[in-house]
Amino acid sequence: MKIALTSFAAALAPALPAAAQEAPKEAPSPGAIVAAAPAKDWVAIAPADLLVMTLAGPAHGPRQAVHDPGSGSGAGGTKRQVVIQLIPAPFSQGWVGNVRKLAAAHWWDGLAITRVQDNYVVQWGDPEAEDKARAKPLPARLAKVPESEYLTRIEGPAAQATLASAAIVHPSNGNAVQALLSDPYAFMTTIVAGFPIGLRPHEDAPPPKLSVWPVHCYGMVGVGRNYSPDTGSGTELYTVIGHAPRHLDRNIALVGRVVEGIEHLSSLPRGTGALGFYEKADQRVPIVSIRLASELPAAEQPRFQYLSTESESFARYADARANRRDPFFIVPAGGADICNIPVPVRRAK
Amino acid sequence: MKIALTSFAAALAPALPAAAQEAPKEAPSPGAIVAAAPAKDWVAIAPADLLVMTLAGPAHGPRQAVHDPGSGSGAGGTKRQVVIQLIPAPFSQGWVGNVRKLAAAHWWDGLAITRVQDNYVVQWGDPEAEDKARAKPLPARLAKVPESEYLTRIEGPAAQATLASAAIVHPSNGNAVQALLSDPYAFMTTIVAGFPIGLRPHEDAPPPKLSVWPVHCYGMVGVGRNYSPDTGSGTELYTVIGHAPRHLDRNIALVGRVVEGIEHLSSLPRGTGALGFYEKADQRVPIVSIRLASELPAAEQPRFQYLSTESESFARYADARANRRDPFFIVPAGGADICNIPVPVRRAK
Repeated sequence: MKIALTSFAAALAPALPAAAQEAPKEAPSPGAIVAAAPAKDWVAIAPADLLVMTLAGPAHGPRQAVHDPGSGSGAGGTKRQVVIQLIPAPFSQGWVGNVRKLAAAHWWDGLAITRVQDNYVVQWGDPEAEDKARAKPLPARLAKVPESEYLTRIEGPAAQATLASAAIVHPSNGNAVQALLSDPYAFMTTIVAGFPIGLRPHEDAPPPKLSVWPVHCYGMVGVGRNYSPDTGSGTELYTVIGHAPRHLDRNIALVGRVVEGIEHLSSLPRGTGALGFYEKADQRVPIVSIRLASELPAAEQPRFQYLSTESESFARYADARANRRDPFFIVPAGGADICNIPVPVRRAK
Repeated sequence: MKIALTSFAAALAPALPAAAQEAPKEAPSPGAIVAAAPAKDWVAIAPADLLVMTLAGPAHGPRQAVHDPGSGSGAGGTKRQVVIQLIPAPFSQGWVGNVRKLAAAHWWDGLAITRVQDNYVVQWGDPEAEDKARAKPLPARLAKVPESEYLTRIEGPAAQATLASAAIVHPSNGNAVQALLSDPYAFMTTIVAGFPIGLRPHEDAPPPKLSVWPVHCYGMVGVGRNYSPDTGSGTELYTVIGHAPRHLDRNIALVGRVVEGIEHLSSLPRGTGALGFYEKADQRVPIVSIRLASELPAAEQPRFQYLSTESESFARYADARANRRDPFFIVPAGGADICNIPVPVRRAK
């Protein structure tokens, strides 16, 4: 596919403020920029968009608990809790709808983490899924989502806005188009509404028509499936615990990302079977429950915010990730891949 | 920095066989290509270039051991052993020399893993390093390596050969230069002598003069340091256990990569202190020993081979990583980042 870049350069140019092209000689660290972001730049995540997974056993696994049962990081305390934000529209909404139904049905309760593959994924679901006689019955009316839904097509003002937001990822590079093209898996990448996405044009001429899709960064949560044309129902979920397996983009649905507690998954013992599956039933980690946070008593609902990926603070943060000028660094990279600009998340006060 | 691409396109063109530009409609998986590679494509790693780190405690940590003490993966059996290949010349040889001296002096024996930061690094060394009264004395004559050694400069035939090898990473893309440019951290990336590297030209005109440097992929081992101009001695080492932190490239020395047993590091409980340091001494994981494999009794020396990164098998493997056509996939990515093409390693028979 040949694409003339000039039209996209033109589409992007207005989004680049002149000041952003002059890199400052010194700058705060990414963390300092996030810490200084004003309250208006933080976006609340609705409890209805959060899943709370509680695993059996104390926080951080037996080893750390032996020394200090109270040392679990995060607000989960001694519970092994993982909090997942579901991806907003327009992405993957067929699968997200299924995940909501499964959570509402308490379907995962009593099931297990079945697979931990180093530098790849942790996966959970029904260990007996392949055995029709023993598999757990599914809730009624789960959607069967077609493969075409791996991509979302947008055009007109929405596409223009997406392209414009793409420019924030490397505002100080001088040549935004070149920097944004520096992704071997997508025509461009950006971060929209708190999620990393890839995009490519359908047509060359403006106004652009785009295909967009969420991408497999660390902590993203996806939908296990069998061979095509199966697309998975959402019963088998996984999260990325290694280098971004971007070859899965556009091949599997992504439904969210872990916003707290991923260490309870990433530090689990690796499975020794093929693909990292646990070989014995008692190696699996039991799931106590998975709930939509909105179903919990109000006092127990976790409250999170993410740094608006459309904010000036985020633009400065992304620039600092791509061009580290804080004291430890001697050579700023001059760029960053999309998965090395994780979206900041915090507990709301 | 403006770079005319045409001269580099010319330098690369001869390395692209015509056949490689015709993508086959079906192809084996990367794993199948590796399994079918002929013996001549495997390169032995000399025991003198391997470090064997033995951690206290049984394989896979207490949890898995409780269920099955013998279930540790790899040839390490029930021992928690991590094997590291030191990077060959011309990269980082000042630091590699120090690491060899430290191993020969058995310097790390009795020290500990002090830091496990999720999606970042595991670090080990002397927990008392900052306290002069309690720090472990260093072996004599450790080199003090200047920052200029983060980069290696090559030119002439060596540079031409490096550029030519760069083409193997995406042989079926048709436009190798464009694909190889798809890295936001380097002008180009490639894999040479078993290690991922970045490169950029010093001068525009052929014959090219290049700066080359190893890059921070999953499992790479680097040298902790304090603020510039300190470059670290090699006493504090770390390995990457998350998404490639490529912003560290050219800012820290890399001395090798883990070739076996990384799960003994990546599955450790995360430290709850700043930067993932363990807050209490008894949370640290004791190091029983770190030895050059050549110092072990012959029968205990681990024997490894890597798939020659200059071989036709590797070119096919890299192409398959970038363009998955095996049955699970419906859309080949059309590219891969350098860290998503891990170099295959196996135990020698």
